[in-house]
Amino acid sequence: MSDNPIYQNLGQLGQQTAQPQSPEEAELERVPNPHAGTLYLTRFVAPEFTSICPVTGQPDFAHLVIDYAPGEWLVESKSLKLYLTSFRNHGAFHEDCTVSIGKRIFDFTEAKWLRISGYWYPRGGIPIDVFWQSGEVPAGLYVPETGVASYRGRG
Amino acid sequence: MSDNPIYQNLGQLGQQTAQPQSPEEAELERVPNPHAGTLYLTRFVAPEFTSICPVTGQPDFAHLVIDYAPGEWLVESKSLKLYLTSFRNHGAFHEDCTVSIGKRIFDFTEAKWLRISGYWYPRGGIPIDVFWQSGEVPAGLYVPETGVASYRGRG
Amino acid sequence: MSDNPIYQNLGQLGQQTAQPQSPEEAELERVPNPHAGTLYLTRFVAPEFTSICPVTGQPDFAHLVIDYAPGEWLVESKSLKLYLTSFRNHGAFHEDCTVSIGKRIFDFTEAKWLRISGYWYPRGGIPIDVFWQSGEVPAGLYVPETGVASYRGRG
Amino acid sequence: MSDNPIYQNLGQLGQQTAQPQSPEEAELERVPNPHAGTLYLTRFVAPEFTSICPVTGQPDFAHLVIDYAPGEWLVESKSLKLYLTSFRNHGAFHEDCTVSIGKRIFDFTEAKWLRISGYWYPRGGIPIDVFWQSGEVPAGLYVPETGVASYRGRG
Amino acid sequence: MSDNPIYQNLGQLGQQTAQPQSPEEAELERVPNPHAGTLYLTRFVAPEFTSICPVTGQPDFAHLVIDYAPGEWLVESKSLKLYLTSFRNHGAFHEDCTVSIGKRIFDFTEAKWLRISGYWYPRGGIPIDVFWQSGEVPAGLYVPETGVASYRGRG
Amino acid sequence: MSDNPIYQNLGQLGQQTAQPQSPEEAELERVPNPHAGTLYLTRFVAPEFTSICPVTGQPDFAHLVIDYAPGEWLVESKSLKLYLTSFRNHGAFHEDCTVSIGKRIFDFTEAKWLRISGYWYPRGGIPIDVFWQSGEVPAGLYVPETGVASYRGRG
Amino acid sequence: MSDNPIYQNLGQLGQQTAQPQSPEEAELERVPNPHAGTLYLTRFVAPEFTSICPVTGQPDFAHLVIDYAPGEWLVESKSLKLYLTSFRNHGAFHEDCTVSIGKRIFDFTEAKWLRISGYWYPRGGIPIDVFWQSGEVPAGLYVPETGVASYRGRG
Amino acid sequence: MSDNPIYQNLGQLGQQTAQPQSPEEAELERVPNPHAGTLYLTRFVAPEFTSICPVTGQPDFAHLVIDYAPGEWLVESKSLKLYLTSFRNHGAFHEDCTVSIGKRIFDFTEAKWLRISGYWYPRGGIPIDVFWQSGEVPAGLYVPETGVASYRGRG
Amino acid sequence: MSDNPIYQNLGQLGQQTAQPQSPEEAELERVPNPHAGTLYLTRFVAPEFTSICPVTGQPDFAHLVIDYAPGEWLVESKSLKLYLTSFRNHGAFHEDCTVSIGKRIFDFTEAKWLRISGYWYPRGGIPIDVFWQSGEVPAGLYVPETGVASYRGRG
Amino acid sequence: MSDNPIYQNLGQLGQQTAQPQSPEEAELERVPNPHAGTLYLTRFVAPEFTSICPVTGQPDFAHLVIDYAPGEWLVESKSLKLYLTSFRNHGAFHEDCTVSIGKRIFDFTEAKWLRISGYWYPRGGIPIDVFWQSGEVPAGLYVPETGVASYRGRG
Ligand SMILES: [Ca+2]
Ligand SMILES: [Ca+2]
Ligand SMILES: [Ca+2]
Ligand SMILES: [Ca+2]
Ligand SMILES: [Ca+2]
Ligand SMILES: [Ca+2]
Ligand SMILES: [Ca+2]
Ligand SMILES: [Ca+2]
Ligand SMILES: [Ca+2]
Ligand SMILES: [Ca+2]
Ligand SMILES: [Ca+2]
Ligand SMILES: [Ca+2]
Ligand SMILES: [Ca+2]
Ligand SMILES: [Ca+2]
Ligand SMILES: [Ca+2]
Ligand SMILES: [Ca+2]
Repeated sequence: MSDNPIYQNLGQLGQQTAQPQSPEEAELERVPNPHAGTLYLTRFVAPEFTSICPVTGQPDFAHLVIDYAPGEWLVESKSLKLYLTSFRNHGAFHEDCTVSIGKRIFDFTEAKWLRISGYWYPRGGIPIDVFWQSGEVPAGLYVPETGVASYRGRG
Repeated sequence: MSDNPIYQNLGQLGQQTAQPQSPEEAELERVPNPHAGTLYLTRFVAPEFTSICPVTGQPDFAHLVIDYAPGEWLVESKSLKLYLTSFRNHGAFHEDCTVSIGKRIFDFTEAKWLRISGYWYPRGGIPIDVFWQSGEVPAGLYVPETGVASYRGRG
Repeated sequence: MSDNPIYQNLGQLGQQTAQPQSPEEAELERVPNPHAGTLYLTRFVAPEFTSICPVTGQPDFAHLVIDYAPGEWLVESKSLKLYLTSFRNHGAFHEDCTVSIGKRIFDFTEAKWLRISGYWYPRGGIPIDVFWQSGEVPAGLYVPETGVASYRGRG
Repeated sequence: MSDNPIYQNLGQLGQQTAQPQSPEEAELERVPNPHAGTLYLTRFVAPEFTSICPVTGQPDFAHLVIDYAPGEWLVESKSLKLYLTSFRNHGAFHEDCTVSIGKRIFDFTEAKWLRISGYWYPRGGIPIDVFWQSGEVPAGLYVPETGVASYRGRG
Repeated sequence: MSDNPIYQNLGQLGQQTAQPQSPEEAELERVPNPHAGTLYLTRFVAPEFTSICPVTGQPDFAHLVIDYAPGEWLVESKSLKLYLTSFRNHGAFHEDCTVSIGKRIFDFTEAKWLRISGYWYPRGGIPIDVFWQSGEVPAGLYVPETGVASYRGRG
Repeated sequence: MSDNPIYQNLGQLGQQTAQPQSPEEAELERVPNPHAGTLYLTRFVAPEFTSICPVTGQPDFAHLVIDYAPGEWLVESKSLKLYLTSFRNHGAFHEDCTVSIGKRIFDFTEAKWLRISGYWYPRGGIPIDVFWQSGEVPAGLYVPETGVASYRGRG
Repeated sequence: MSDNPIYQNLGQLGQQTAQPQSPEEAELERVPNPHAGTLYLTRFVAPEFTSICPVTGQPDFAHLVIDYAPGEWLVESKSLKLYLTSFRNHGAFHEDCTVSIGKRIFDFTEAKWLRISGYWYPRGGIPIDVFWQSGEVPAGLYVPETGVASYRGRG
Repeated sequence: MSDNPIYQNLGQLGQQTAQPQSPEEAELERVPNPHAGTLYLTRFVAPEFTSICPVTGQPDFAHLVIDYAPGEWLVESKSLKLYLTSFRNHGAFHEDCTVSIGKRIFDFTEAKWLRISGYWYPRGGIPIDVFWQSGEVPAGLYVPETGVASYRGRG
Repeated sequence: MSDNPIYQNLGQLGQQTAQPQSPEEAELERVPNPHAGTLYLTRFVAPEFTSICPVTGQPDFAHLVIDYAPGEWLVESKSLKLYLTSFRNHGAFHEDCTVSIGKRIFDFTEAKWLRISGYWYPRGGIPIDVFWQSGEVPAGLYVPETGVASYRGRG
Repeated sequence: MSDNPIYQNLGQLGQQTAQPQSPEEAELERVPNPHAGTLYLTRFVAPEFTSICPVTGQPDFAHLVIDYAPGEWLVESKSLKLYLTSFRNHGAFHEDCTVSIGKRIFDFTEAKWLRISGYWYPRGGIPIDVFWQSGEVPAGLYVPETGVASYRGRG
């Protein structure tokens, strides 16, 4: 419907796209940022993330929050979704997985700044949360709290 | 300070009492109910319960809610606390442990009615809650919801 | 300001009134119910209740909710407040105290129905809640949940 | 804009209407119920209610919830708002005020059923809530909880 | 991808479908219920509903919850979404709109039972909620509370 | 560690067990209920459920609550977990998937009663919740609300 | 009713005003700030925002929070509402739409500072939030958190 | 009861005091600050504020939070209450009203610092919040968040 | 049980101790800080505080939060509790009482830093909160929000 | 399953490991940090912590949050769990216990920064929270609030 030229060169949006089978196979795509000279924040929340524990082979689950200040590029959101989905059959430790996703999106979009917050479901009664950001929050950028509750057990 | 006669025959209240080492060793005590002819509800909430998993030997934790309508007897609360503490080094499955505690207090106090609600901390990503009551709620007894949140994972 | 005749015979409302020193000394007062033929509910919430533990002499605290369906009489609210305040230096066990307050107001107002809910602050890590009502909720009376959270410990 | 005939005979909707100075002066209006043969519920929530204490002359505030099952008539909502506003300079006790509002709307609309819930702001540390309904909830009518928190003091 | 035969005769699912311009133009579609002999509940929550006020021409917004116990048919969810979207440029009063949507889905699916709950955004400081169900909740059907907060103003 | 005989014949507990690749391949296991003559409730909460949409091939996510009143058998929890995990690569519609899981556990355990509540993540802005139970709640069984929030969009 | 001169030159307030059909057609209006020499914050919350997805033609919904520190001018609130309403039939991407609204109000009012927070409803399981501000928060200006919950999926 | 000299010269506390009919008529009173050399914060929360819209003549409602660091004087709280009550029949715009109240109390008490937060009930679906403070928060002063929820519409 | 030498010189811990009748009579006690060279925070929460209004003679209630960074000494917690209890029959204004308690504990423990937060129950519809700290938060000390809700009235 | 070399030298992970009987006996283990050059945060939440009161011999409970910025090493999570479990029969004061756990993990992992937050269950109506961190939060590290509610008593 749109013939906005920034969407012309995309390979996945508006296509039937096969699910990528691994993060390596997944292709992030990017489009020009219509407010490239402006400092602002975009937040994606992905509560449907799952990967495989490389030690036990069992599924792990996480709730991810990705905050970034776009530079010249916006990450195209369908490709982002497919990228996150590509971890479904992929083995990864919590800390490594979270930081690596953040770094890949940061590098790919050449963002001004990026933070990833990974809230992993508990194992052995103790959940792990992982937070990485590319540097200090740029002056003048508003980054609200993620507002994700910390784990509380029962009661 | 009190010389209320209903407290005369107790062995633990107001005494230095050793921690019982098992539920068998623990002695519940009871005092006459000052409103024995009246139907009413007493709720104890015990968020500090822990026992041992009989399969793995690792600690389990639960948040317990005990509701009962006293008959001729009230359970003396210090003895209740020591009884619950006595599971600390005791191996017990979730369902069995919860129902057994409920039955023992119900039998010992000869209560008109009793409900126990056991909210166990998750293992393998899945918590177990166990609810037992001695029968239908007696007509005219007000039993509020326990208000304990069900488990929600993360996010 | 009001010269509503139902307020003519009161001894405390609009007077400087000394704090009663015990429940026995406190005088509840009542006024005619302007909708005496109508079944409806009045709820008082008293989160500022305190009494003395008869065993240890230390202060106890409770949050009380009193629901009643008035008959011919309404309890006058200033006298209710003074009555509740009169427990400040009075020794009373949790169950007995709660049920006795409920019965006295029920008897004094000749209410169609009354419920008292007493939420006591924890002692020894375990709080006690006490709920008494004069009988089954009358058909056609709306009695909402008290909405008081059950105790949850920490976390 | 609408020329729906059910709105033809109204005196206030779509007019500049003076604020009525008392409940007696306020005129409720009604329109035919387009689903008159159907049992259903309409809920109004009016958190902006204020009246005058007839004893002290000081303002009182309440949060009102009005639930009714319309019969042949719907209460016209602008006239409802003006009616509630008319208590602004009117002296009224909590119980009487709440029940009287409920009865007037019930009578005027010839409703199948009506409930009013009045949550009054605390005086003397103790708020009063008043609940009246015209009878038992009709079979087949869904009436959700009002969801209004009970008073909790501080902490 | 699926060649489940129950999806063979649908006109909208998996098609580029134009937005219907009015409820009359919208076509609900239905598929056979795979558990037609079983009593169970399906809940749709549609927080993105908007229509036009027939009096003022201004947009109205509502949060809808639709609960039904399917009989022989399930409503196909894409057609449900398009049907709800078709109110975007349509004038409708709150009570009428809510009840009419409920009746149309109930009739079209020949459901065993249906309830619609419409939570409308406030106008003039007073929101209206509308609840209709096709009859008493069938014995054995679990219908949880909608859990939608009632309006509270500010503070 | 335990040599409780009820755990003697299990094939998965305490074993390295391969992840079953489909619900058909997964084997539920059961152990004798130690309180078989007693009516009580066990609740499992599984917020880590994921399956595949049979139409689009994309992952779906759900939060499941399973309540049952055990008869002669308890479902063994490791086998339950593996059964739920087996949907990871399995295509299933929301209604069908939820009801089928409930029925399989109910049949396999020969439970006195079972309810399953499936809360699916939104698609097209509208989530679907599915609730099935094997019949009316047995008299005398306490089944608390699941306490899962209904979907609310944003704001 | 008011003859406050600051309202003399407005074209929309207190008039029957047609709904503008696009943001271009909408006219923001402004009035002199009565505390122009004072640094303070005004927050508008607009939970009733909807626009059209330029790719799919389907409606999008957002919850907007607009914070600004007025300079010489206040934005007139009826014109603000009509401006926001004008996006109803307008195609716009989330990031672009949010930032553009913020910039237009900032430029038009010549504000000292402005922030816009756009919380968009999820698409494809992942919502997008967009935050833009005109620069660092001025020293001495109090800007509370927006308090909008981040998206959490289900459970 | 108190014969604390700081209360000697007050005209309203402990007196029958007529309600002032306008802010101009209302008299704030002040007493010496017993910790005048100490930097600390006092917060008043006034959820019972109402005024008149100068354009429509209809009542407006607000929830006010007043934070100040007293200097030589404390505002006497009964006079504060009467001052706020004096807006009941007074016409005032939201921004102007909030800022003016803050400035008057700040000037009258010669406070070290003051902030007022005004949360107004929605009109036209959009509430306005207004925040003014007399300058940057003084170093070493603890000013907690007001904790007032931002408006969320429905759902 | 403990023969930790730091507890040797205490007069109240592990003793039957009479309730002190006034703050002057109460004796705070202190023990050596086992991590005296380390900057850390200890928080006490005391929701069971009550005193007497010196003007009316009626009870006042408060919820207190005391945060401090211990220096050479820790306040012994039983003596702290008795000190707080000693206000039960003591007349004190809100601001004065809160600040004085904070200063006394700060001085007595020679703490590195201390903050007291006093949340008083409403009188006349308006609660007062008081916050005092001994100076700016020391660099490197983590002091979480107290998380106490501000007062909200009803609704 | 994993043959990641960083897990080669561990003595507990993937082994049947006996519960250590004291903190001295417990062995923390560590693995190389895969993002050792990157500043990021890992949070562990341990709501299942219990120890023994050295004065009374009775169990204490706490909810612990451990935040750290790993340097060359990650703490291996199974050894962390066993370490925390080792306090089960160990006597320790609240302040000392919390700070000592933090210091041991900080020293053992040679972390860039560490904070421990200990939320202890109330004793004598007053809970104690303890917060220690190794120094100021490093620039560029995101450390969200722990989000643990402070204690509120009842009501
Ligand atoms: Ca925050
Ligand atoms: Ca807990
Ligand atoms: Ca309930
Ligand atoms: Ca979740
Ligand atoms: Ca309820
Ligand atoms: Ca409910
Ligand atoms: Ca309920
Ligand atoms: Ca409280
Ligand atoms: Ca419910
Ligand atoms: Ca309010
Ligand atoms: Ca419930
Ligand atoms: Ca905040
Ligand atoms: Ca905060
Ligand atoms: Ca909404
Ligand atoms: Ca905070
Ligand atoms: Ca925060």
